Amino acid sequence: MKALGRHILLELYDCDSEILNDQERVEQIMKDAAQAARATIVNSVFHRFNPHGVSGVVVIAESHLAIHTWPEYGYAAVDLFTCGEEIDPWVAHHYVAEHLRARKKTSLEMKRGLLSVPVLKHKP
Amino acid sequence: MKALGRHILLELYDCDSEILNDQERVEQIMKDAAQAARATIVNSVFHRFNPHGVSGVVVIAESHLAIHTWPEYGYAAVDLFTCGEEIDPWVAHHYVAEHLRARKKTSLEMKRGLLSVPVLKHKP
Repeated sequence: MKALGRHILLELYDCDSEILNDQERVEQIMKDAAQAARATIVNSVFHRFNPHGVSGVVVIAESHLAIHTWPEYGYAAVDLFTCGEEIDPWVAHHYVAEHLRARKKTSLEMKRGLLSVPVLKHKP
Repeated sequence: MKALGRHILLELYDCDSEILNDQERVEQIMKDAAQAARATIVNSVFHRFNPHGVSGVVVIAESHLAIHTWPEYGYAAVDLFTCGEEIDPWVAHHYVAEHLRARKKTSLEMKRGLLSVPVLKHKP
């Protein structure tokens, strides 16, 4: 049985709270992570909350990368969802964890779209 | 131990392929799902792929809703990530599954941001 996508749910604890609260830096880190994984960026949306926290998504041709930060807890929830065999979500995983300076993390990879029919090659 | 967020990973099979390939309808369904769950929409980004498939994310004040469709397989991968106690991601779950006319689905709720410290009330 073949999966269409790979989805890493990444929990980052004890990050640098200053970075987590900086919309511009968080956005740059997520975009750089996409590029490090050789994904093609289609669009992105980021938002800073009052009094603190950043949410954002990078839509890639191969699915999406999302982040929500809670600077007051030093925590970030990160989702790295990719499809196709060209790119590796674990490259983005390592990039984000390192650049948010997470001292503790848990990661879980889920397979998405488990099909019992052969998967065509042309779909990213 | 308190969780900051709730994240439903929803796999929709045997959906209406015509809807899955219609960017405008998919976007409207995802926005309506957010509103049905009483979420506050911050922004959204949707994209239609060639030859088929739609990807999109609705960023909400309470996290995000994301979708990727494979009309050729009648399949959609949906993520419903919410935080705060005001809104219920399962309302969005039922709305999306019904409106994409999924005949088969699997759902999994993950807790995100498990903290050992008391969670403040003011953060959405």
